[in-house]
Amino acid sequence: MPYFDAASAAPLHPVARQALLAALDEGWADPARLYREGRRARLLLDAAREAAAEAVGCRPDELVFTSSGTTAVHAGIAGALSGRRRVGRHLALSAVEHSSVLHSAAAHEAAGGSFTEVPVDRTGAVDPAAYGGVLRADTALACLQSANHEVGTEQPVAEVAALCAEVGVPLLVDAAQSLGWGPVPGRWSLLTASAHKWGGPAGVGLLAVRKGVRFAPQGPAGERESGRAAGFENLPAIVAAAASLRAVRSEAAAESTRLRALVDRIRTVVAERVPDVEVVGDPERRLPHLVTFSCLYVDGETLLHELDRREFSVSSGSSCTSSTLIPSHVLKAMGVLSEGNVRVSLPAGAAGADVDRFLEVLPGVVAEVRERLGAPVAPLSAPRGCPADQDRTGRGVWCGASQGAGASSSRSDSGVSATPRGAVPGVVDPVLIRRTPPSSPGPAASLVVDALGRRCPIPVIELAKVIGEVAVGATVTVLADDEAARLDIPAWCEMRGQEYVGEEPADLGSAYVVRRLS
Amino acid sequence: MPYFDAASAAPLHPVARQALLAALDEGWADPARLYREGRRARLLLDAAREAAAEAVGCRPDELVFTSSGTTAVHAGIAGALSGRRRVGRHLALSAVEHSSVLHSAAAHEAAGGSFTEVPVDRTGAVDPAAYGGVLRADTALACLQSANHEVGTEQPVAEVAALCAEVGVPLLVDAAQSLGWGPVPGRWSLLTASAHKWGGPAGVGLLAVRKGVRFAPQGPAGERESGRAAGFENLPAIVAAAASLRAVRSEAAAESTRLRALVDRIRTVVAERVPDVEVVGDPERRLPHLVTFSCLYVDGETLLHELDRREFSVSSGSSCTSSTLIPSHVLKAMGVLSEGNVRVSLPAGAAGADVDRFLEVLPGVVAEVRERLGAPVAPLSAPRGCPADQDRTGRGVWCGASQGAGASSSRSDSGVSATPRGAVPGVVDPVLIRRTPPSSPGPAASLVVDALGRRCPIPVIELAKVIGEVAVGATVTVLADDEAARLDIPAWCEMRGQEYVGEEPADLGSAYVVRRLS
Repeated sequence: MPYFDAASAAPLHPVARQALLAALDEGWADPARLYREGRRARLLLDAAREAAAEAVGCRPDELVFTSSGTTAVHAGIAGALSGRRRVGRHLALSAVEHSSVLHSAAAHEAAGGSFTEVPVDRTGAVDPAAYGGVLRADTALACLQSANHEVGTEQPVAEVAALCAEVGVPLLVDAAQSLGWGPVPGRWSLLTASAHKWGGPAGVGLLAVRKGVRFAPQGPAGERESGRAAGFENLPAIVAAAASLRAVRSEAAAESTRLRALVDRIRTVVAERVPDVEVVGDPERRLPHLVTFSCLYVDGETLLHELDRREFSVSSGSSCTSSTLIPSHVLKAMGVLSEGNVRVSLPAGAAGADVDRFLEVLPGVVAEVRERLGAPVAPLSAPRGCPADQDRTGRGVWCGASQGAGASSSRSDSGVSATPRGAVPGVVDPVLIRRTPPSSPGPAASLVVDALGRRCPIPVIELAKVIGEVAVGATVTVLADDEAARLDIPAWCEMRGQEYVGEEPADLGSAYVVRRLS
Repeated sequence: MPYFDAASAAPLHPVARQALLAALDEGWADPARLYREGRRARLLLDAAREAAAEAVGCRPDELVFTSSGTTAVHAGIAGALSGRRRVGRHLALSAVEHSSVLHSAAAHEAAGGSFTEVPVDRTGAVDPAAYGGVLRADTALACLQSANHEVGTEQPVAEVAALCAEVGVPLLVDAAQSLGWGPVPGRWSLLTASAHKWGGPAGVGLLAVRKGVRFAPQGPAGERESGRAAGFENLPAIVAAAASLRAVRSEAAAESTRLRALVDRIRTVVAERVPDVEVVGDPERRLPHLVTFSCLYVDGETLLHELDRREFSVSSGSSCTSSTLIPSHVLKAMGVLSEGNVRVSLPAGAAGADVDRFLEVLPGVVAEVRERLGAPVAPLSAPRGCPADQDRTGRGVWCGASQGAGASSSRSDSGVSATPRGAVPGVVDPVLIRRTPPSSPGPAASLVVDALGRRCPIPVIELAKVIGEVAVGATVTVLADDEAARLDIPAWCEMRGQEYVGEEPADLGSAYVVRRLS
């Protein structure tokens, strides 16, 4: 049963499991105690700290173990901001950081601080010059991930670290996704990571703070881990985490080459075999094991469910797979399609045969979901034979005549057959379309699609269905209150070569205006 | 090798180990994910929450898992204080709470709030009426432990909860030490606990917040555990923690009876066999497995070391065993002796034979340490045969003629033979004694002992040595800069029937004045 969501969590590495079992016997006592069991626990803790510090590239006394990557980020950002409070209360970060960083920034703002998000390009990377541009005299801290957790794009950490060092701003690097593959390059000041991303157990994060970096731990005082992480040390798990980090590092060179080839294969074959797909993220400067793509006219939750039925476990940044019904902030910042989004992240040891099977299964599953949604479909002969007509950015392009294929009745059916989350089954109204001028023969001068109350990907599907009904140069206005529409309608325009005019407020939602160009 | 420090940490319960191993295989995935591995993890998490909630006596949706007991306390106090911020910013707590509670109170004060510590009696218990008396119109939260972690005394939680409920103040109960033995009685509002105290793994705490209690989680927002605990769920450990709690509860009735008898035996025999010992804590209203006593004229660190050499692992609240060189705040609040302090906390399954052996070994070890320190000693014939001449409070009494036994030379030796932590070996000066009037025959009218720079238990030993040299009604003044002297000189007076006159500031330390009464 192929599990392809290593970026969320991975099964314990066999070395971690062994280390954990040994440490359960040898390292359960309080390492602060003076008796035999305590001293033994202290030795294990010290050894784990040394191993982890070596892998991170810092001194053992610069590294503490936290209870998770998230708490490492929270503690690191709060401590660094407070340590430089006299300098100012401005925080710089990229727009595609992990939610733990974004939430820290929001908490900082709520407490009277301020922050600036550095935008990313369509591959998800920040521009070092742009990052340098947001650093100010009152910037207390800058944050940048080593690589993005949703699309795998590596950030120019060394360049940004150099710019930060020039102006004396400490840089915190969230290395959660990359630390298992290698040390973070450049002159970073603080670093955070999470053990269960590298085959270690849950319950262990790490926070490194270089000597000389001003740091004032926040929250109630603590006696453990230099006062930087609260609570009794989770020692057996710490021992397992350090052992696992050492083990995956020793396998990293070979395994990254192998997985990189598998991911390249996914990138190529998905674009070839699945019509209307956008493979996102930098194709070169990326994590070895991770690839993400979005499928037009596809409901992400249904797609994940269908893949799960076929025993493939993947993740998604589509709004319908999040509890908040908001699409991934990463895809949003990149300006790429969020509907039908799939993240494949291969665990160490992932089998090539499983990847092949995934690539066999995926096109049919996507086609099936689209059919159920009544989405515009490519001709039956096309899906696989579709020429890999990709533009420079590596995005797939539409390879079938589909415009104007829908009629009122099929719209209604499509709405019912895949009831979006949050809607009441059986009471979905058909999408209303208003033509101007009404009922005149020939293409409409303009057209309004009322998709209020309809969830992703319905608003985009309805737009695609009617775009052929208006004259070239005329507009289609989509009324929608689904958050994903704000991202996916412009992304659709970009993919389909139509003009996205803009968004206007409307009763109960927003009006997204699209001009037909071709 | 008898491990008698279960109150710090206990080896994994066999059931916890089994559950942990199973959950490492079944529960490593992200419980928030929709695929098979995620759903399986979610089922395990839900089942663990139900089991824990049942043991706590709350609804599953009132309980979250945190990364430790300490983080549960931090999150619980901060969230409850913030939730009732409109009511006021006053916090009530007992003086003998766990450091995580005290540190939370200090952080609250640093942020502009205030707190009141309710004193305890000589057994370590708060008086419910006194607790009720500190509740004010602006009290946002009250905290009370279910039982004390250092001396085992149970607090009148149900009575205090009733008083709190009467005036509408929520009560947070830190049940870290007692939850394995049974549910907390009374109408508490919040409850915290720590799994590795009940044979679960490290890395798991729990926080229960009753419905209807105003609660506003602090710190950066989080998506997990209702936003009340940050970071990826430590699922295998959570599963093991819940399984262990259920297991120890099913054994609690029998095991508590058995351990209670062993502890009773320790309480009795220690008082009988060790001269100048104070067994502390309530002899009846107490945890079943925990007993604490303090030995006059004994260096706690040396005592622990000598017991460790004989393979007994125990803990101590003596100043010399803490990194801060400050005696336990619990012993201080109780007003009992802190020197030579030993806490014995028996793990489940502790063997009676090991306890017997401990009671065989202890008197000799204490005598040996005293001898090395040049402490006043009971006559050789007395130690075991010493009549159990205990007063009403259960404290042991001095059973040998020791006063005035010391001479200058032996003092100097004693200081060298047991070099106190922080002192430079080999350069310990003899304690200086100034007599008034100087060099006159007969008892001195008053006497000053300069024990500056000398650590516990030296100042008390020196006091004991010279008290016989002054006339009845005259005073001995001890100059000391060791924190423990502030607690132990009055405690010595209480034990020896002398009058503690008081403390005055002095150059480089304090002057403790004692009047000889007998």
